[in-house]
Amino acid sequence: MKSNIHNLDSIFKPRSIAVIGATMREGSLGRTVMKNLVEYEFNGKIFPVNPRKEVVHSFKCFPGVLEIPDDVDLAVIIIPKEYVLQAVDECGKKGIKGLVVLTAGFREVGGEGIKLEERLAQIVRKYKMRVVGPNCMGVINTDPAVRMDATFSPESPLEGNIGFLTQSGALGVAIISQTRRYNLGLSMFASIGNNVDISGNDLLEYWENDPRTDVILMYLESFGSPRKFTQIAKRISKKKPILAVKAGRTTAGAKAASSHTGAIAGADIAVDALLEKCGVIRVASIEEMFDIAVAFSRKKYPKGKRVAIVSNGGGPAIMAADACTSVGLEIPPFSKNTRQKISRSLNKIAATSNPVDMIGMAGPNEYEKVLHYVINDKDIDSVLAISVTPPTLVDPMSVIKKIENASKKTGKPVLTVVMGKDVMRAHADDSGVPDLPTYEFPEPPAKALAEMLRYSTWQQKPEGNIKKFKVDKKSVKKILDKEQSKKSHYLTNKQVFEILSAYNMPIAASHIAKTHEKATVIAEKIGFPVVLKVVAKDLVHKSDIGGVALDLRNRGEVIEAYYEIKKQVDAVKTASFEGVLVQKMIEAGKEVILGMTSMEQFGPLLMFGLGGVFVEIIKDTQFRPAPITDLEAEEMIQSIKGYPILKGIRGEKGVNIPVIKECLLKLSQLVCDFECINAIDINPFMVGEKAESSFIVDARILVGWY
Amino acid sequence: MKSNIHNLDSIFKPRSIAVIGATMREGSLGRTVMKNLVEYEFNGKIFPVNPRKEVVHSFKCFPGVLEIPDDVDLAVIIIPKEYVLQAVDECGKKGIKGLVVLTAGFREVGGEGIKLEERLAQIVRKYKMRVVGPNCMGVINTDPAVRMDATFSPESPLEGNIGFLTQSGALGVAIISQTRRYNLGLSMFASIGNNVDISGNDLLEYWENDPRTDVILMYLESFGSPRKFTQIAKRISKKKPILAVKAGRTTAGAKAASSHTGAIAGADIAVDALLEKCGVIRVASIEEMFDIAVAFSRKKYPKGKRVAIVSNGGGPAIMAADACTSVGLEIPPFSKNTRQKISRSLNKIAATSNPVDMIGMAGPNEYEKVLHYVINDKDIDSVLAISVTPPTLVDPMSVIKKIENASKKTGKPVLTVVMGKDVMRAHADDSGVPDLPTYEFPEPPAKALAEMLRYSTWQQKPEGNIKKFKVDKKSVKKILDKEQSKKSHYLTNKQVFEILSAYNMPIAASHIAKTHEKATVIAEKIGFPVVLKVVAKDLVHKSDIGGVALDLRNRGEVIEAYYEIKKQVDAVKTASFEGVLVQKMIEAGKEVILGMTSMEQFGPLLMFGLGGVFVEIIKDTQFRPAPITDLEAEEMIQSIKGYPILKGIRGEKGVNIPVIKECLLKLSQLVCDFECINAIDINPFMVGEKAESSFIVDARILVGWY
Repeated sequence: MKSNIHNLDSIFKPRSIAVIGATMREGSLGRTVMKNLVEYEFNGKIFPVNPRKEVVHSFKCFPGVLEIPDDVDLAVIIIPKEYVLQAVDECGKKGIKGLVVLTAGFREVGGEGIKLEERLAQIVRKYKMRVVGPNCMGVINTDPAVRMDATFSPESPLEGNIGFLTQSGALGVAIISQTRRYNLGLSMFASIGNNVDISGNDLLEYWENDPRTDVILMYLESFGSPRKFTQIAKRISKKKPILAVKAGRTTAGAKAASSHTGAIAGADIAVDALLEKCGVIRVASIEEMFDIAVAFSRKKYPKGKRVAIVSNGGGPAIMAADACTSVGLEIPPFSKNTRQKISRSLNKIAATSNPVDMIGMAGPNEYEKVLHYVINDKDIDSVLAISVTPPTLVDPMSVIKKIENASKKTGKPVLTVVMGKDVMRAHADDSGVPDLPTYEFPEPPAKALAEMLRYSTWQQKPEGNIKKFKVDKKSVKKILDKEQSKKSHYLTNKQVFEILSAYNMPIAASHIAKTHEKATVIAEKIGFPVVLKVVAKDLVHKSDIGGVALDLRNRGEVIEAYYEIKKQVDAVKTASFEGVLVQKMIEAGKEVILGMTSMEQFGPLLMFGLGGVFVEIIKDTQFRPAPITDLEAEEMIQSIKGYPILKGIRGEKGVNIPVIKECLLKLSQLVCDFECINAIDINPFMVGEKAESSFIVDARILVGWY
Repeated sequence: MKSNIHNLDSIFKPRSIAVIGATMREGSLGRTVMKNLVEYEFNGKIFPVNPRKEVVHSFKCFPGVLEIPDDVDLAVIIIPKEYVLQAVDECGKKGIKGLVVLTAGFREVGGEGIKLEERLAQIVRKYKMRVVGPNCMGVINTDPAVRMDATFSPESPLEGNIGFLTQSGALGVAIISQTRRYNLGLSMFASIGNNVDISGNDLLEYWENDPRTDVILMYLESFGSPRKFTQIAKRISKKKPILAVKAGRTTAGAKAASSHTGAIAGADIAVDALLEKCGVIRVASIEEMFDIAVAFSRKKYPKGKRVAIVSNGGGPAIMAADACTSVGLEIPPFSKNTRQKISRSLNKIAATSNPVDMIGMAGPNEYEKVLHYVINDKDIDSVLAISVTPPTLVDPMSVIKKIENASKKTGKPVLTVVMGKDVMRAHADDSGVPDLPTYEFPEPPAKALAEMLRYSTWQQKPEGNIKKFKVDKKSVKKILDKEQSKKSHYLTNKQVFEILSAYNMPIAASHIAKTHEKATVIAEKIGFPVVLKVVAKDLVHKSDIGGVALDLRNRGEVIEAYYEIKKQVDAVKTASFEGVLVQKMIEAGKEVILGMTSMEQFGPLLMFGLGGVFVEIIKDTQFRPAPITDLEAEEMIQSIKGYPILKGIRGEKGVNIPVIKECLLKLSQLVCDFECINAIDINPFMVGEKAESSFIVDARILVGWY
């Protein structure tokens, strides 16, 4: 449907812009947009369009785009919504390829607005135009060859290498102002509004190949198409870091909250799992995004956890060490050699171990020398240089310049904390975005170092493979085809058994007995002890009515249990007894739970965790969107807190971990093969020392439509 | 030793100050201090002292304090350390009561510095002077009746109601500058340096009764006397909030890391437990402290979790809702009445539910009305008002004024987020500390609201009682007296049994048998099944050598186990077999662990947790400094994650919780009665449905000197 993505050039690199709704009326958006374009010194031609004006901002004004004698690449539309469709149609006729529609009052207001937006979409498609908006705050390109601020932001951003996209216009205005204060330089900016055409995914792909964009920031409220997003974001993350704030943590829920897996998974867990899968760095707030982005934008990532701290004050050094430690970084001792060199450069009461406290009298020379030594220590991966603005003769700017020089000469990240007088702001005002990532407090750069390390580790991590097991897909299809037109419901024990068996998952042998005689025959065949489970229509929670009898050791106990269960079911009016399932009693091994819940928007989300109280009380579980690779399956298993229990603690032998991995991968294959499966709980899966002694004891599958 | 605390008045409210070391030399501290005193317009007399000057800063300069004709209350000393003692002695002779010694080179440099500081202390005590420092950056009192900035900070703070004390001078300089940017007004400030005399505790007590100080902030690196601090801080916290950053998370460790409890407790856990006990709000960073203090300084605390969010932009409103939810606050729906009133005041496309999105065109009138309605909704406890600086005709300052007015009229806290242009800074520069707590992002005020709620809940919480159980303290004393002069070691099983029994803790009956015949006799007496445990010299980890035999069901099994254990011990060269302990096998109930570890500085720290894998893997434990009250014991038990397991889940009956509580309280009493106990692990304590069926199965006690 959509044409080649390079069409976004008409929006971000236009040679001429028509401003439809340009005006000089105080307080109007049309005025602000016009002034921003002119004052930010757009490199191309600007044509104001307004039938009631002859001149706007000293430019000759045209009654409509069709009257403009020159070619126009982009039209920025900021007129009342009633006139938008006609203006857009004229843009199409004029051959304009790009539109930015700032006007609000479309889908976001519901009712008539939705219809209006649909008609807008039709016209746009007819002329094959590309559109940002409607209901947005515009776009910016800081490229000196373009210099376009087509927004109504009261401030323009600094030039830099960060692409920023926002789904909230209100936030966009605030963000641009704040980037200045955080010394963040932008390459491009886009507020996508209702994204009738151009989506976040389109922008990601556009910035993927933009040489001026090294880091991508996103403020998201929803994912248009999570699957497509995953694909695109994963590919781009391997090249450029993507940082995202995803707001609206409580807006969506799991479809199948009645399942165990669904009850634990929330929308936010799904978002976390999705972003983690594609290497997107999720941050908790805009402030944290800025703090981390400042560091990322310098494109130097630490190779390991080892941080050197160099300070001219003890307190801030200790705080920095605390901050690093609390995000998993290390403050290792220096080599003897490094330490000796540091000692020789400093006052004898200075602390020469890591963190280095050069004390208050340290000036530019001390910083220069000590930074040189610690940067060249091969056991150091990154440096945090702290300058507490001193009250005496030392000029803080000269110290900052030395840190900046040291930083330029190394591939290791050097982050800086300047505490005290507002030196950095002055620094920034002097010279645009400074080369040195600088912070007011030690905690944010520590966090930034940790995130950079996590990102570069992710970048280098092997992909892993999505295994395709040989399975009997046909049989499963046959079972599910009959079920999926019905309302959402749980499959029977028998169906579940057949489906998991078809995918070669080790479900414990079980057979249905419709009489007590049959039950005893089966029990003798599979060997005591056995378990009986009720088989009954319209009964989901077996154990609620005493529908399970455990550890039956002889014929007599089986018969007694058979009639006890029957009695219980007969007492429930809505249910009807159909027999019992006779299953081998599995005693050895550890309980684990495998599950899947289908999330609104997000598709199937796999879960792994320790069973029993661990899943109920501690919620010690891991989630990944399906399909998962073999490495992801391993990660899921290894990253639960209770993993040592599976490996074996207190001298106990561990359980067979490969069988868990294989089962997770098969589950992944199953839920991707059959989208009609809404939820699965495999609980418990009793895992023994060997694969052969590991059995799925119970499982539930939810299918059908809502 | 120390005299009446009101003597601090000579330091914080002097009528005359001698500046010993005053000079006008560029870049010297003597110049900065002199200039700060003069330029901040100290209300009393200033006398520069410097034998080499006649005039300093246009003041007549004296060669020594003894030459000053007037009375002097305070001397600020900033001369080379070699001359400090003589100067202090002269101050004593002159009758000066207060000293602030900025000079460094004392205890902090070790060696000679330590001796110098000891001599300083002697002179000070001789004249009964009070001293801040040495090695500090001075003190400030912003009281208009005093106006004293006796520091070398390049900026003076704004006037306000916050007392700030710091153990780091370097940080102090930074902090004062930063308070201005955070719109924090200070009442007093003190950098305590090496606190040769005046400690943090002294300042807390001084500010306790200072009517100008409503909030106390502390930057701490160590506790001089944690027990005294607890006492003082707990009392003051009931009246005024105390916020603390405690840096240096990895500096101290548990004495008995070999014990279970010791292995889990770290110094940081001890600090957390200590601060929590006395109601001090521990924050992770200076930035967080400022963010929270801004809100606290207005002295309006929420009565509950229910926050109303009022915004002129959707994105920021969603972020604010996320932020509130993630710190445990709630964004409840408004009453129908409130909602109707809001609807009538706003554009029809505005969102009138909570959070309210008034959309971009909302001006001062909309803010005024909507704030009035939500503040007066009885189901709302606090308000977060957000203004995204709009690009159009609305003047952001007029909106802020309306929010400020609404805030003034209510006892509910109203916090404000102003995103975008740096309006608030301008606001602050206009009029000092603004009346309205204002933030740049929504996350910090959400955190502040949560902390204020937590604090006011703590303030109102009943104290609870420290129960005194009737115990046989004498017997325990007899046992311990014999042991405590030895090196640190574990007591024998028998001793542990006797000690816990003397405090009426339900330790499972057990008897020592030195022959297999005796073992069988005991087993028959207490009833099968039984457990045998090795008794041997120099053997701590019983289970390591197979020294425990469980579930012995008859005489034969007991005899076999006896010789098996003996064989194992005989194989260990260093150990010598002395017999076995025969104990009733306890099968029913849940495992819990009770413990104590004695922390450097902090004294005994009690632990409670679920036993087994919960304590080993999940570390689901709670700590409190002993002694604990009955309410604290309840809190410890109820606040572990696994509490539902104790209450009973999946239809299982719960265990007897009062018996756990009683045992914790007795443990508290025991460790407070005997300081020589370094660590106790009561693990497992098998708790059954009834108190009578709950037994301590094993326990270890570590005593003696290190």
